[in-house]
Amino acid sequence: MTTRHTARVAEILSWYHGSNPGVLTNLARLLNHGRLAGTGHLVILPVDQGFEHGPGRSFAPNPPAYDPRYHFELAIDAGCNAYAAPLGFLEAGAADFAGEIPLILKLNNHDVLQDETDPLGARTASVADARRLGCVGIGYTIYPGTAERRLQYTELAAIAEEAKANGLVVVVWSYPRGGGLSKEGETALDVTAYAAQIAAQLGAHVIKVKLPSAYLEQAAAKKVYEAQNIPRNTLTDRVRHVVQSSFDGRRIVIFSGGALNENDQALLAEARAIRDGGGFGSIVGRNAFQRRKEHAIALLGDMMEIYGAPVRELAR
Amino acid sequence: MTTRHTARVAEILSWYHGSNPGVLTNLARLLNHGRLAGTGHLVILPVDQGFEHGPGRSFAPNPPAYDPRYHFELAIDAGCNAYAAPLGFLEAGAADFAGEIPLILKLNNHDVLQDETDPLGARTASVADARRLGCVGIGYTIYPGTAERRLQYTELAAIAEEAKANGLVVVVWSYPRGGGLSKEGETALDVTAYAAQIAAQLGAHVIKVKLPSAYLEQAAAKKVYEAQNIPRNTLTDRVRHVVQSSFDGRRIVIFSGGALNENDQALLAEARAIRDGGGFGSIVGRNAFQRRKEHAIALLGDMMEIYGAPVRELAR
Amino acid sequence: MTTRHTARVAEILSWYHGSNPGVLTNLARLLNHGRLAGTGHLVILPVDQGFEHGPGRSFAPNPPAYDPRYHFELAIDAGCNAYAAPLGFLEAGAADFAGEIPLILKLNNHDVLQDETDPLGARTASVADARRLGCVGIGYTIYPGTAERRLQYTELAAIAEEAKANGLVVVVWSYPRGGGLSKEGETALDVTAYAAQIAAQLGAHVIKVKLPSAYLEQAAAKKVYEAQNIPRNTLTDRVRHVVQSSFDGRRIVIFSGGALNENDQALLAEARAIRDGGGFGSIVGRNAFQRRKEHAIALLGDMMEIYGAPVRELAR
Amino acid sequence: MTTRHTARVAEILSWYHGSNPGVLTNLARLLNHGRLAGTGHLVILPVDQGFEHGPGRSFAPNPPAYDPRYHFELAIDAGCNAYAAPLGFLEAGAADFAGEIPLILKLNNHDVLQDETDPLGARTASVADARRLGCVGIGYTIYPGTAERRLQYTELAAIAEEAKANGLVVVVWSYPRGGGLSKEGETALDVTAYAAQIAAQLGAHVIKVKLPSAYLEQAAAKKVYEAQNIPRNTLTDRVRHVVQSSFDGRRIVIFSGGALNENDQALLAEARAIRDGGGFGSIVGRNAFQRRKEHAIALLGDMMEIYGAPVRELAR
Amino acid sequence: MTTRHTARVAEILSWYHGSNPGVLTNLARLLNHGRLAGTGHLVILPVDQGFEHGPGRSFAPNPPAYDPRYHFELAIDAGCNAYAAPLGFLEAGAADFAGEIPLILKLNNHDVLQDETDPLGARTASVADARRLGCVGIGYTIYPGTAERRLQYTELAAIAEEAKANGLVVVVWSYPRGGGLSKEGETALDVTAYAAQIAAQLGAHVIKVKLPSAYLEQAAAKKVYEAQNIPRNTLTDRVRHVVQSSFDGRRIVIFSGGALNENDQALLAEARAIRDGGGFGSIVGRNAFQRRKEHAIALLGDMMEIYGAPVRELAR
Repeated sequence: MTTRHTARVAEILSWYHGSNPGVLTNLARLLNHGRLAGTGHLVILPVDQGFEHGPGRSFAPNPPAYDPRYHFELAIDAGCNAYAAPLGFLEAGAADFAGEIPLILKLNNHDVLQDETDPLGARTASVADARRLGCVGIGYTIYPGTAERRLQYTELAAIAEEAKANGLVVVVWSYPRGGGLSKEGETALDVTAYAAQIAAQLGAHVIKVKLPSAYLEQAAAKKVYEAQNIPRNTLTDRVRHVVQSSFDGRRIVIFSGGALNENDQALLAEARAIRDGGGFGSIVGRNAFQRRKEHAIALLGDMMEIYGAPVRELAR
Repeated sequence: MTTRHTARVAEILSWYHGSNPGVLTNLARLLNHGRLAGTGHLVILPVDQGFEHGPGRSFAPNPPAYDPRYHFELAIDAGCNAYAAPLGFLEAGAADFAGEIPLILKLNNHDVLQDETDPLGARTASVADARRLGCVGIGYTIYPGTAERRLQYTELAAIAEEAKANGLVVVVWSYPRGGGLSKEGETALDVTAYAAQIAAQLGAHVIKVKLPSAYLEQAAAKKVYEAQNIPRNTLTDRVRHVVQSSFDGRRIVIFSGGALNENDQALLAEARAIRDGGGFGSIVGRNAFQRRKEHAIALLGDMMEIYGAPVRELAR
Repeated sequence: MTTRHTARVAEILSWYHGSNPGVLTNLARLLNHGRLAGTGHLVILPVDQGFEHGPGRSFAPNPPAYDPRYHFELAIDAGCNAYAAPLGFLEAGAADFAGEIPLILKLNNHDVLQDETDPLGARTASVADARRLGCVGIGYTIYPGTAERRLQYTELAAIAEEAKANGLVVVVWSYPRGGGLSKEGETALDVTAYAAQIAAQLGAHVIKVKLPSAYLEQAAAKKVYEAQNIPRNTLTDRVRHVVQSSFDGRRIVIFSGGALNENDQALLAEARAIRDGGGFGSIVGRNAFQRRKEHAIALLGDMMEIYGAPVRELAR
Repeated sequence: MTTRHTARVAEILSWYHGSNPGVLTNLARLLNHGRLAGTGHLVILPVDQGFEHGPGRSFAPNPPAYDPRYHFELAIDAGCNAYAAPLGFLEAGAADFAGEIPLILKLNNHDVLQDETDPLGARTASVADARRLGCVGIGYTIYPGTAERRLQYTELAAIAEEAKANGLVVVVWSYPRGGGLSKEGETALDVTAYAAQIAAQLGAHVIKVKLPSAYLEQAAAKKVYEAQNIPRNTLTDRVRHVVQSSFDGRRIVIFSGGALNENDQALLAEARAIRDGGGFGSIVGRNAFQRRKEHAIALLGDMMEIYGAPVRELAR
Repeated sequence: MTTRHTARVAEILSWYHGSNPGVLTNLARLLNHGRLAGTGHLVILPVDQGFEHGPGRSFAPNPPAYDPRYHFELAIDAGCNAYAAPLGFLEAGAADFAGEIPLILKLNNHDVLQDETDPLGARTASVADARRLGCVGIGYTIYPGTAERRLQYTELAAIAEEAKANGLVVVVWSYPRGGGLSKEGETALDVTAYAAQIAAQLGAHVIKVKLPSAYLEQAAAKKVYEAQNIPRNTLTDRVRHVVQSSFDGRRIVIFSGGALNENDQALLAEARAIRDGGGFGSIVGRNAFQRRKEHAIALLGDMMEIYGAPVRELAR
């Protein structure tokens, strides 16, 4: 990275003008790594499913993925911008792969060993852990719509303050859930846009949400969406609204890949919609590590090319 | 600001005689900024509705308002005394507009993704955040009447102590809510006056309440109000009682503008009642940023002139 | 105060022999201020009703009392030993009246905007606030008998430790309440004595309780009171038992004045019973500030003379 | 104490070999004070009943006991090893009797103003309070069997760590209570032994339990007690089992005296059983301070002689 | 230990490459102590049953075990890699046996004095306690599947961070329990593998789980286990799956010995299955200290030989 920033990276960094140079440096590292370096788009590999769903459900479909080194290698070989995981997975590889891929430490996690209407993650690592592991940022999941979201927002606020003071990028997974929402409402357009806005107002540098449906959940919002004719028929329209709801596009918003979908073309169509709606990229877990490695690299490579990566192998 | 304080500003500052020079300096900045500089009146732009109501409901009626820069510009161009917002919105503009408008960081927020009888905000930022963003003060919302108001008062007490030690002005939004009150009671005169008194006793420098109705909620209070013939027929009477209930007018009390009202004259009539009752001004959110920018500037300008601003454009 | 302590003040201070000189100095300031200086008796003005009952109910009967300066002046002009109030009221006058009257900062408060069986106050200020305002002591209310009294005792323990380390006097309002007691039991003799004992064991220097009735609430206590023939027919008897229950009279116990009573003679009769039972004085709020100022000064003056004040005007 | 430790004291201290010299010094002070100095037995005066039961119930049977000085004098004159009490009682005498009797500050307390299935004490003082009052140790009550015992164990763990770092002896009152136990089970042999073991595992230097009955509460324990034929018919047998359950006798276990029992001979018979079962002594509150002073001194003296004190008056 | 590490120890340490030298040193001490030194296998003696089940149930079957010294001696004489116990037991022997056996301080504990669906241990000691007692590591129990597992994960995260910064090994007991699981599910293969994965992701260096059954508890997991044909008929198969679920065998996983089983051959068969499935050893409590000492040493010796210990007496 001996050249100056591309115009697009410089533009994106300008939105974070109020941040300290440490944060800007790590944000630049994210944007300037991998096959999408310099494009302003990102494809990130997140692997927290061992904790969130259990090891058998997550890794048995592709057993090499039980090994923590596998994911570092997958992210590096595919040319991802970053690799995000809980403490244990990062501790098990951060030294061996030091400096080969930007790392994001997930600071909270949640298991599914008890059914819950209102999930509430546990803080499983700290900002200090992220520093000692050489990470560029930290990740934190909030569940807007749950009864105890207040605890999550407040914990995130404290973590974000500490992370920023230490020059780390703050990535927020914002997943609406809980007794206040219908099942369909969890991915409703208004609710997804609201979740993105909350993450942005909490000071996230990078926001991760799910792809929204055209459904509208909240009556008061629905009235406005209909009165203002907010387009929502196509996925591209909906991505555009979520991006607009994230400070008019002045915050990086990426979309999660969802459960395993064996149809590569469907996933690539989603990537095109994200790109066309002004989204900044994808964060692809199960659709990466639950495929065989060569297949995953090919799929991620196709996605990256949709997002503007040059059609070649990544030089490391 | 090379001249001495006006007599009115000097008088107001004298009420805060026990505060440290840092607080007095920031209070003076608030009072000496914008078109109302030196008059002792204030018109403040607050924009926390993206968090409190959602982005679509808040900004779709006037889409430029999705952009965090819009509100800085609106507050500056209209000649407001200050701009108040949550962390994300301030971080997204505090550097670009540094020194152009006094900023107030809202330290707690609440969303409406779950219906609640007794709302309880989350702390979403800190006094240290306010310092690094160059703010003149911090804002905090309490909900007197809710079951967990105790947590809010105690959190505010700790925040206010830290803010004052750092020379920051403490602005308290005091909004009665909760299972202890009827819906009508939330804006009852006795309850509004009580809410203002609680904020004042908690050490607020500036108090924000809603405009009260003539209704009386609490039986024990009603008895006294009727025995003492406290006037409450006109809005001016009621503003006067709330101001009296705020340390006999020795604390700055401002009134919120409420939901979007397309009738400018009604809003201006409220401003006159605030002024005539001894109120210190208005804090106008939706009625500012949900109008088109030129319209908002005109409306805010008319309000400011009611509050004593000279009939001219603000020189910056 | 250039003379040596009176014999009575020296005796009282001897009970607090284990305290540091800072505490002894502030205790001496309390005992040596006002018309009762040197007598070992105290009359204190407390004004927290704006928070506890609301401003209209508290101050409309005597509107000058809306102004925080009024209470400083009333306490000074009446020759009280001290003035006690929440943060806001003290901040609004501590500078203007610095050094003219010993101040006690109430560190917790409770409003009545929601009915509660088991009240639980909020901490509304800190020991550091008391120090920066030049106070001689801090006040804290506990509600023995409530479900969450444990939180209150523990909070008080921490506050008292910090206050003492800073040389501040600890004044405890001990008001039995809560689901564990009958309404009559809240002022029962056994319960009041128990409340005084708890405050004393928690390390209070000065204890404030209500005047007890002859009723006995707890069966186990009643058995002992009857077996031991503890006198309780007259108010004097009952005050004597409460004083005995406060370390055999080796802790300062004062009694609260209660709700507005327009019968001055009844209040003076209570003062005589307090004096004759060995009580240390009165803490009179509503019966002071809800009377017109001249009337209040006269009533407080009559009380002070009962407690041993010389029959003259206070020289300041 | 210019002589070397007796062989028994040296043996007892050897069990605490891992403790720092500060703790060993204060433990030696406990063992080497009063009429039982050097014997390895202890008789301690604890007076927390003013808080735990109320002042009338506790002190009216012997009114001089209202005075905090009374208990210092009683403990000193009777030749006790130590005096244990809450903050208020110790603050009221620690200076006047400085160095005349080892003091133990009770750090938590509980009142009976509300009926509770699962009592939970309040922390009413700190390790720092113990230091400033010149105490040799701190006391803390746990209620094994209550719903919130976890809070108590965790609080004790933190307190014990701080106390030990400050060279203070940790004395744990371990009283089974709560919804998990039958009334009879609170003093069952298996439960009492379990309570002693928990205190020992939590790092107590001195353990205080009640005298156990022959009843067995827990089915799983009963099976083992019966299979192993653990003797439990006599009080001596039961004391022996509790002592064995306290690290095979390598922790000091003392037994509480219980409610007022006017039959001196019954109390002395208990002391003999404690001695014969290998117990380390008694901690006698109500049976000391609710008797007239001369009677109490005579009774405690007889107990001490059972525990091995020389038959003479204590030389101080 | 003047020789270089064996190849196996060096290999194991390489998995913890990201840890600081302090942690690696203590991990090496664990692996290089006792009869299994250098083999990469471990047999550890844990004794927390006095707290977890009560002293009578735990120690009456073999009364010398009441004495805390007994367990140090048993662990040393049997040639175990380490001895793990709560604070009290370690404090009672750490000085006398200093340097003779690696120690692991259990930082949380739970008693059975109240029936609970969702157990929640109390923190009973600290990392600082482990340091002052010369321990090589700390132990902590989590109960995945309980309602408050979030508190446990978060507490463990904080403890592990502090322990690692101090160079201590983190050993996690991961025992599924709670309302979210059936009784059979607590040892189900999928749940045991999930529990091991959670411990690993929380950053454990050493993981302790129970031996799993062939049962599958969670529907979503069962579907995958069956689709992928994960072998689970033999204990060896199941151990292999748990080891794979612990970062593909790159974390040390040991298996607990369970309740007293008088059939030595059954226990040795389990050890063979653990060894053959790639497990790292056994942690044997009741099956060690509830046997007579010579018998326990013989049984543990046989186990160690299965795990690769040379057939001779340990030279110390």
